[in-house]
Amino acid sequence: MASDNSTSNTMWGGRFASGPDAIMEEINASIDFDKALYNEDIDGSIAHATMLAEKGIISEEDKASILEGLSTIRREIEEGRFTFSRQLEDIHMNIESRLRELIGAAAGRLHTARSRNDQVALDFRLWVKKELIKTEAALTRLIGVFLARAEEHADTVMPGFTHLQTAQPVTFGHHCMAYVEMFGRDRKRVRHAIEHLDESPIGAAALAGTGFAIDRHMTAEALGFSGGPTRNSIDTVSDRDFALEFLSVAAICGTHLSRLAEEIVIWSTPQFNFVRLSDSFSTGSSIMPQKKNPDAAELVRAKTGRVNGALVALLTVMKGLPLAYSKDMQEDKEQVFDAAKSLDLAIAAMTGMIGDLTVNTASMKAAAGSGFSTATDLADWLVREAGLPFRDAHHATGHAVALAEKKGCDLAELSLEELQAINPAITAGIFDVLTVEASVASRKSFGGTAPDEVRKQIAWWRERV
Amino acid sequence: MASDNSTSNTMWGGRFASGPDAIMEEINASIDFDKALYNEDIDGSIAHATMLAEKGIISEEDKASILEGLSTIRREIEEGRFTFSRQLEDIHMNIESRLRELIGAAAGRLHTARSRNDQVALDFRLWVKKELIKTEAALTRLIGVFLARAEEHADTVMPGFTHLQTAQPVTFGHHCMAYVEMFGRDRKRVRHAIEHLDESPIGAAALAGTGFAIDRHMTAEALGFSGGPTRNSIDTVSDRDFALEFLSVAAICGTHLSRLAEEIVIWSTPQFNFVRLSDSFSTGSSIMPQKKNPDAAELVRAKTGRVNGALVALLTVMKGLPLAYSKDMQEDKEQVFDAAKSLDLAIAAMTGMIGDLTVNTASMKAAAGSGFSTATDLADWLVREAGLPFRDAHHATGHAVALAEKKGCDLAELSLEELQAINPAITAGIFDVLTVEASVASRKSFGGTAPDEVRKQIAWWRERV
Amino acid sequence: MASDNSTSNTMWGGRFASGPDAIMEEINASIDFDKALYNEDIDGSIAHATMLAEKGIISEEDKASILEGLSTIRREIEEGRFTFSRQLEDIHMNIESRLRELIGAAAGRLHTARSRNDQVALDFRLWVKKELIKTEAALTRLIGVFLARAEEHADTVMPGFTHLQTAQPVTFGHHCMAYVEMFGRDRKRVRHAIEHLDESPIGAAALAGTGFAIDRHMTAEALGFSGGPTRNSIDTVSDRDFALEFLSVAAICGTHLSRLAEEIVIWSTPQFNFVRLSDSFSTGSSIMPQKKNPDAAELVRAKTGRVNGALVALLTVMKGLPLAYSKDMQEDKEQVFDAAKSLDLAIAAMTGMIGDLTVNTASMKAAAGSGFSTATDLADWLVREAGLPFRDAHHATGHAVALAEKKGCDLAELSLEELQAINPAITAGIFDVLTVEASVASRKSFGGTAPDEVRKQIAWWRERV
Amino acid sequence: MASDNSTSNTMWGGRFASGPDAIMEEINASIDFDKALYNEDIDGSIAHATMLAEKGIISEEDKASILEGLSTIRREIEEGRFTFSRQLEDIHMNIESRLRELIGAAAGRLHTARSRNDQVALDFRLWVKKELIKTEAALTRLIGVFLARAEEHADTVMPGFTHLQTAQPVTFGHHCMAYVEMFGRDRKRVRHAIEHLDESPIGAAALAGTGFAIDRHMTAEALGFSGGPTRNSIDTVSDRDFALEFLSVAAICGTHLSRLAEEIVIWSTPQFNFVRLSDSFSTGSSIMPQKKNPDAAELVRAKTGRVNGALVALLTVMKGLPLAYSKDMQEDKEQVFDAAKSLDLAIAAMTGMIGDLTVNTASMKAAAGSGFSTATDLADWLVREAGLPFRDAHHATGHAVALAEKKGCDLAELSLEELQAINPAITAGIFDVLTVEASVASRKSFGGTAPDEVRKQIAWWRERV
Repeated sequence: MASDNSTSNTMWGGRFASGPDAIMEEINASIDFDKALYNEDIDGSIAHATMLAEKGIISEEDKASILEGLSTIRREIEEGRFTFSRQLEDIHMNIESRLRELIGAAAGRLHTARSRNDQVALDFRLWVKKELIKTEAALTRLIGVFLARAEEHADTVMPGFTHLQTAQPVTFGHHCMAYVEMFGRDRKRVRHAIEHLDESPIGAAALAGTGFAIDRHMTAEALGFSGGPTRNSIDTVSDRDFALEFLSVAAICGTHLSRLAEEIVIWSTPQFNFVRLSDSFSTGSSIMPQKKNPDAAELVRAKTGRVNGALVALLTVMKGLPLAYSKDMQEDKEQVFDAAKSLDLAIAAMTGMIGDLTVNTASMKAAAGSGFSTATDLADWLVREAGLPFRDAHHATGHAVALAEKKGCDLAELSLEELQAINPAITAGIFDVLTVEASVASRKSFGGTAPDEVRKQIAWWRERV
Repeated sequence: MASDNSTSNTMWGGRFASGPDAIMEEINASIDFDKALYNEDIDGSIAHATMLAEKGIISEEDKASILEGLSTIRREIEEGRFTFSRQLEDIHMNIESRLRELIGAAAGRLHTARSRNDQVALDFRLWVKKELIKTEAALTRLIGVFLARAEEHADTVMPGFTHLQTAQPVTFGHHCMAYVEMFGRDRKRVRHAIEHLDESPIGAAALAGTGFAIDRHMTAEALGFSGGPTRNSIDTVSDRDFALEFLSVAAICGTHLSRLAEEIVIWSTPQFNFVRLSDSFSTGSSIMPQKKNPDAAELVRAKTGRVNGALVALLTVMKGLPLAYSKDMQEDKEQVFDAAKSLDLAIAAMTGMIGDLTVNTASMKAAAGSGFSTATDLADWLVREAGLPFRDAHHATGHAVALAEKKGCDLAELSLEELQAINPAITAGIFDVLTVEASVASRKSFGGTAPDEVRKQIAWWRERV
Repeated sequence: MASDNSTSNTMWGGRFASGPDAIMEEINASIDFDKALYNEDIDGSIAHATMLAEKGIISEEDKASILEGLSTIRREIEEGRFTFSRQLEDIHMNIESRLRELIGAAAGRLHTARSRNDQVALDFRLWVKKELIKTEAALTRLIGVFLARAEEHADTVMPGFTHLQTAQPVTFGHHCMAYVEMFGRDRKRVRHAIEHLDESPIGAAALAGTGFAIDRHMTAEALGFSGGPTRNSIDTVSDRDFALEFLSVAAICGTHLSRLAEEIVIWSTPQFNFVRLSDSFSTGSSIMPQKKNPDAAELVRAKTGRVNGALVALLTVMKGLPLAYSKDMQEDKEQVFDAAKSLDLAIAAMTGMIGDLTVNTASMKAAAGSGFSTATDLADWLVREAGLPFRDAHHATGHAVALAEKKGCDLAELSLEELQAINPAITAGIFDVLTVEASVASRKSFGGTAPDEVRKQIAWWRERV
Repeated sequence: MASDNSTSNTMWGGRFASGPDAIMEEINASIDFDKALYNEDIDGSIAHATMLAEKGIISEEDKASILEGLSTIRREIEEGRFTFSRQLEDIHMNIESRLRELIGAAAGRLHTARSRNDQVALDFRLWVKKELIKTEAALTRLIGVFLARAEEHADTVMPGFTHLQTAQPVTFGHHCMAYVEMFGRDRKRVRHAIEHLDESPIGAAALAGTGFAIDRHMTAEALGFSGGPTRNSIDTVSDRDFALEFLSVAAICGTHLSRLAEEIVIWSTPQFNFVRLSDSFSTGSSIMPQKKNPDAAELVRAKTGRVNGALVALLTVMKGLPLAYSKDMQEDKEQVFDAAKSLDLAIAAMTGMIGDLTVNTASMKAAAGSGFSTATDLADWLVREAGLPFRDAHHATGHAVALAEKKGCDLAELSLEELQAINPAITAGIFDVLTVEASVASRKSFGGTAPDEVRKQIAWWRERV
């Protein structure tokens, strides 16, 4: 079965008309996406060339001409004047080939004591590190917006939900601070992910290290790797943990964003009417001007699928790969690039949305008080203040709720007499917990919803933004 | 927290310098990817306009001018002269807006009795259907290549593996036919997936159907939907089963391709040396000309991660979405486009690779005979021909293997006397099963590895290609 | 590094105190879960023994004693008197070993011309087929419940949502029928999945077929495989497509169930108050008797994660496995068993929940009318009846909505004069579409929400239950 | 549609014969799996009761009787005398109910100022923390075994692979150390995961905190949470980050284990013959005594699917869940329990397998030298020692390889004359790098494969075990 191009035209059904070569180029070339690594590739080459010269492996002249050539290439790329070629497969070969055009034989010497295997490990690791640093900053901005809204709404009462049913009154500030905790944990994970990847791969060469007397500590320092060089050259070219860890950190953060997005979608319904999105983050209808579709929130909710998919993709790619480098690993970058873009965008959209949205405090308060949401406050008061056994307190509370339901009023609207008829131990002090404001104010346990407690947590976080 | 652009420059950290508008456009606009649907969008509009005119809902003049305008737009897009605009969000609005420029008010009438919700459902479904038809053809080509290699190698003996350990001799033709079965099942699933999606969404309108007296059977027929129109308008705009089913069919097919790829990688090692890839589907080393890296096979193996990831992404997106249309569903297309491209490419690469590879029959045969791979043939012979109880047959076989191991020879190289010393029931007939050729020829059960049996299965499949 | 048990006590840290043997048994033995296959294993053995006797490979006496022994074993298992042993690893060896105790040497002859590789392929395939048949019946029951509710509520008006915002009025019957379509597609996929797997693996033996003159068509028929025996013995023992396809069909069905669950959770909130769950499918609070937590719906929603996880697990296991049987494939069963249990339970819970829930038609109707949900009806009427160009119709509608909003009334409550002031082409006929009932009744397009149209679709489905 | 049990018998098709109650119990009760948390539940209750007494919220007598009751219950469970009840749903209610039987009304007081929401958050977090601590120890053991094998084989030459093709010689010790790095990174992630979860949930109550004057710092300290109490009660009952992070750390570790498993499977083939597994971690064939199937390695490879599946399952469950507690979260535990068991087992199996396996140094060395694996050493020597430009060095190396291939000998077997004929700059010093031992010894860069360098890294790790 020959791969004769003339016959293959038919064989490939028009899609890969030029036959095997077109297929191989299509599947093999990575330049369409790895050109995003041009900065990291050039930075790595500068550090490598500088070290080679310092160690006397290449001449100072060669180094100077390499650095000048790389600087030209960087400018050409930034100005859109660089021609990327698929025949040259990847960013490394594209730059190396252009360098050869610019400076001749010295370009070849840049490749001394390194290989594409450690080069791509370096470039990609640097890229992921930068992205993590950007994510850390973006999370800090998002936390900042939540702190501002929490402060503004430390006293705003809203229903606390379990099972999406009203359970107990809380404050909107307290609810905002729950997200501060979530994104704060994400930020911690981001910081540790940076710490885990902060070792320099360059100098591992193809997989075995090199016989040239290179100084890997020097390149590690030049490139800002605080952990020095990696300690095992086989592992170095086989390892994509930094990409997997980035994706798993992103997936957990994406999960938080999806929960927030879901709440915004639900809160924006006419039925809930807790918040109103700004025009910037919603779309309308030409004929129903009052309508606001939470498109951005829905898209943020959907992005979690995308990030989870990227994580699964790379975990699947890496499963069962023998050491050291296998070409399968070329599939790592697009997943990370795509997840990073999704995460960036989702965090930015949420930062804007939360900052911009109008809080409908009246709706929140009305909903907070419905459904006898202070029933547990009543029971707790009976235990705490009247010394009733738990079971009796619950029994009395059930009676009070039933009475209020029958009368069509709130618990706080029952009279003292009515309450004392249910249990004589009840005193006027009970009314200190039966309104939603009183309920909220009473929950002063550490981390509880009492406004003062929420303000303490805001202050704690203010020092950490 | 105002979304004042001047302050937001700092706030968004440079990435979304123009503030909320840039973020919203970035997250909301789909034109960068859904322009791939332009043909389907135009086909759908032609069918819709034709039906509207037929039913007297729009005039024949309007229809004529709509059809001419759409034809112009299609040409503009194909010739690269169409300017896609992100402000216009998606392919539907881009085309509609251009149509208005070209033909004026009549363009608006095209939108009678339809909405973007049923329009995108139509476009995407048409695209997936075409892709499935292309995949069916591609699988048929791949099956064809395997049939050719199976025919060529119906008698070529190789080791059959379990646990990647030599178990029993088989033929390479038989092994090829295992893949014919796998890709044949994939083709069946593709055909059923087409059948499942073959209903026309257009006319479901926003979600509730329409009061215009449209004829959905007419548009369904014009667009080639053999199942007629969908039966429930709410489901129609909420449903992405066709995309999920495409992805799950692709994931199973991708799994088959990954198994084949793994075998090619292992068979290409110097240790196995069963096959030699053509230059078209491998890469070499400038200084080690004998080396052939199975890059394409590795990339095919990796693509399974990508397809699985896309499946997870869309399953996650669709989880828990209330009816009817939610914007989350905009995340459906990129996953399907990417998985489709990966699957196309992987099938094409494997078709080429299998067609081109050189089979090293000598290595295969040598490996097939090692490790006393006909021991079970010996045991079976003792049961079948000598009437020994199973346990005794196994006992005798163990002895024969031990003797051959001690002598450093194959089972077939033991003498009749030596074998009879182990069990006197053994006759010269035993040698009919002790060589790998004899072993293979003896396994004549339906679907077994005997060359004649393999040829029968090839013939059966020949009628189905 | 010796694996001396006395030292390993420390080494394994107490968890695997008896050292390597405990680890190996723990990781290798499958009897804890594959005992679920006992019926299929015995059925397969009966068919195999019967065929062996018919073909003269074993004697009629042996066959009779094998069948009697198997029948005893089945009874022992069903009555809980069978002792499963982990030392015997799996269900096949547990049964074979007990058979040997019961009938002696004849037990060994049952293993003629088969191996554990084709045996497990048979058992598991039979199990999955039964499960698919059960799922088909369960889906038919669920469809039946939805048809009953749809019939009951063909005229019940509710809001049709897009983006969880009220878009246009629909009927609850119409909404129910959307789920009939979804579960109907699931049922189609289930039926095709059965068709795809309906071939008999038994007789493929270890991987190469056998030299015994077996009749695989006879066993295939005895076991109810309508597609006859599989056509390639290597593929037969390597293939787990039937499990992957089951899981992907389950994942899509699970996605539908999660969407339904999400709607029930949202509809059960006091804010929406569209439905009230029965006590059977909700949990309460001892002190808040009016509260009903939709626990079962939430758990159904969560089960989709479990099924998706099982699909990913098995796709990952199968990725890159060389042919033929590898031990990795032992990980197939628990994923399928778990997903099947989740799916069964989720369908049953939803069947009960939908059948039992109380529909709050007043709340639905009130919500349907809010938000000027008939604005598109007004615009469509202007186009259709008054012949206005689309753009003008939208313009006029925007004005009418703005006026109604200003007046704090519904569109239907505007006077004819007010409407004519906006556009003189408006006549009294307009009121035929401005109420939610009129809007719904007008959408008579095929598959639309008009009650008569919904009833037609109910009738169509009634013939298919 | 009544849920009348007598009719439902038919309706549920025999599987849920008792109707809705059976379904609800089946889907709702968690006691079958959450009983694994009994120790954590009791520990939490002891800390809570002690604090309540200390703060004067319950009496010392109640505390004493609670502690005694809990101690009795723990003993009952450990001795298998405790009857778990599905009617009581979960571990918390099972224990609370038994406590009431044992000590009466005081049992109710234990529930003061807490709820099942913070109780399950505590129990599960404590369980995950313990599991992480056990995983850390297990990884340390695995690292220890690799260090021992690395030391033993610091000089054992083997082929270094890229694309599973021989690339350059390395040592087996160096290869072992690559896994030390991987599992070392896993251990770092485990330690940070512990740090991230180390805050006490108890006292968050249902979701809003409590009005009782509890001391959450006291319970946090008693339970060993070094980070004190959590800072937001809503987040506390909504958060499952600790479970997601455990699963993602496990998934990355599982990926490493799968790569190791794949290598063992490949190395154990007769074709590679690099290692021989001990009988403890392989299975044999009764008739082919020389055969060793790497079952345990294959199962470890498969477990990565299981862990990835669990991660996807929980990410999917948590996607889009509104705050605070939703019942969906009950699906968290089984995924984590299953993944933890898989990970434990896989690490233990690998620890045993690596410790026990026999290294076939002769096969490794022979393979290391094949395929002109020192060609890059030759090229590097020409650059380094003879000062040739890169391109010329590669050119000369290509010639030398071609000559050796033609002569059927190794590079090291070419004569100095032959080499000088290719390039006159070559001197006798070249032979210092052309043998595999020389090649390996020359790669002294930090992290390189030179035995001395590997020993340095072993020493570095010895201090960290």
